[in-house]
Amino acid sequence: MIGVDWGTTSLRAYRIGATGAPEARIDRPGGILTVPEGGFPAALREAIGPWLADGETKVLLCGMVGSRQGWVEAPYLPCPAGPAEIAAATSPIPFEGAEIRLVPGLTTRDSAGIPDVMRGEETKLVALAESVGTALACLPGTHSKWAHLEGGRVTGFATHMTGETFAALSQHTILARTSTDGPDMPEAFARGVDRASQPGGLLHHLFGARSLHLMGALAQDETRSFLSGLLIGHEIAAAAEGIRHVHLAGAEGLAGLYAAALAQRGITVTRHDPDLVAAGLRHIGRSLQWI
Amino acid sequence: MIGVDWGTTSLRAYRIGATGAPEARIDRPGGILTVPEGGFPAALREAIGPWLADGETKVLLCGMVGSRQGWVEAPYLPCPAGPAEIAAATSPIPFEGAEIRLVPGLTTRDSAGIPDVMRGEETKLVALAESVGTALACLPGTHSKWAHLEGGRVTGFATHMTGETFAALSQHTILARTSTDGPDMPEAFARGVDRASQPGGLLHHLFGARSLHLMGALAQDETRSFLSGLLIGHEIAAAAEGIRHVHLAGAEGLAGLYAAALAQRGITVTRHDPDLVAAGLRHIGRSLQWI
Repeated sequence: MIGVDWGTTSLRAYRIGATGAPEARIDRPGGILTVPEGGFPAALREAIGPWLADGETKVLLCGMVGSRQGWVEAPYLPCPAGPAEIAAATSPIPFEGAEIRLVPGLTTRDSAGIPDVMRGEETKLVALAESVGTALACLPGTHSKWAHLEGGRVTGFATHMTGETFAALSQHTILARTSTDGPDMPEAFARGVDRASQPGGLLHHLFGARSLHLMGALAQDETRSFLSGLLIGHEIAAAAEGIRHVHLAGAEGLAGLYAAALAQRGITVTRHDPDLVAAGLRHIGRSLQWI
Repeated sequence: MIGVDWGTTSLRAYRIGATGAPEARIDRPGGILTVPEGGFPAALREAIGPWLADGETKVLLCGMVGSRQGWVEAPYLPCPAGPAEIAAATSPIPFEGAEIRLVPGLTTRDSAGIPDVMRGEETKLVALAESVGTALACLPGTHSKWAHLEGGRVTGFATHMTGETFAALSQHTILARTSTDGPDMPEAFARGVDRASQPGGLLHHLFGARSLHLMGALAQDETRSFLSGLLIGHEIAAAAEGIRHVHLAGAEGLAGLYAAALAQRGITVTRHDPDLVAAGLRHIGRSLQWI
């Protein structure tokens, strides 16, 4: 089978053999935003045509290709969901020469009944869920996902808009004046994490990044890391309340910051390779009896 | 005496007679950002020259004119501070033909020792403090100020970066796609305020504005008001914890939103005319024995 993670800015395809091991991999910049209207079949054929010509007949797609901006909008599947539920909810897409199915996103509701959604992360999470038992997993990022995993399934999750909030605040508020780009400053980051556990609320703590600088207690090149620690600290305080251990899968730099902040709050961490999509596609493909 | 509130985008001057009543008022767009280097004496003379020619000899300045970007940087005065302490901390500015003094900003530290600052609002607050006794006052805005008032003095305060955070998030995140300009939607605003009192944290609640819309539970023209209610709700939850009554002074539209959110949380409100600067300048001028 072929598994494809087709996101906003890139396309990654994996050729997965009968044993489940990825045999080949393609990485391309052609994210869904670069595909012209009606151009998805041709774009996919351009990417994986040689594998189709070589006899592959099953293609499983996940990621933003299933969003309103993508090829076909795949509905969100309610939690709890594992490979079997996700496989049963995949949508067929007509395509000449191969059977294509689209992985659904997941949805859940929090204790107040407010919905949450993910698309793409569900495929990573089923790979994690297979190996970690009952656990809380964190996929940090623009929209960080915190998921409860149990029995190989995602039982619920919460999204925190931390990365995007950091970008907006550090570039488009008074903090931009002092949020110069530069190397991470671990001590300033730790001060931000520490500040997040104090009273006053996030909106007050944000102004502290300004007033600390005005009063000479935070250097210009420290503001950005302080703000990062403040936001990640607030995220962790809310997402991991009462939790002692977190499974963390993310790109090296960002996952390193989360690991440091979690450790600072006394939470132990297991780090995972962030490249989980191939394994997740394989699990779902197995439930489809494609391998 | 003459009192001048010289801010970033405007200049307001008041001619205050011996009885303390403002006898005349000037409103000009010439904020400090429009003044060329070295141009402050000429700009002031252009604004209030006729009053000086008519015999006024004392000029009290407040606002961002005392910031690093202004005429002269006035240091911050620690709380508690009322008209007497502020008058004693005013800085003289050399000026031909009149005695000019600059009102200092205020500074305080919260229970964790983190500094906070204000500049300009102290003059409004001493006017409020004179009339309200022991109270919590809120001046909503880009950087909302919550001040404890007692015995005519500001005893401490906290800044919440709510207005600026709203602007950055509604214009520079995924929420911008659905945060269309338009009339305030009171029901969506109230849902945002309500959401702020639920668990999950602000960074999670922000994503809810997106997922509610995706799931068809928040209309496109409601997102902006929901976000506004969410942020103001979080601000109030942190700033007015355990408080039953708030004195509110702000521009009509914004103060109306705060009054609604406070009422929704069971906090009673006294609204004040936001035009408090003339009264504050008069109180400080009286302590200087200028009137």
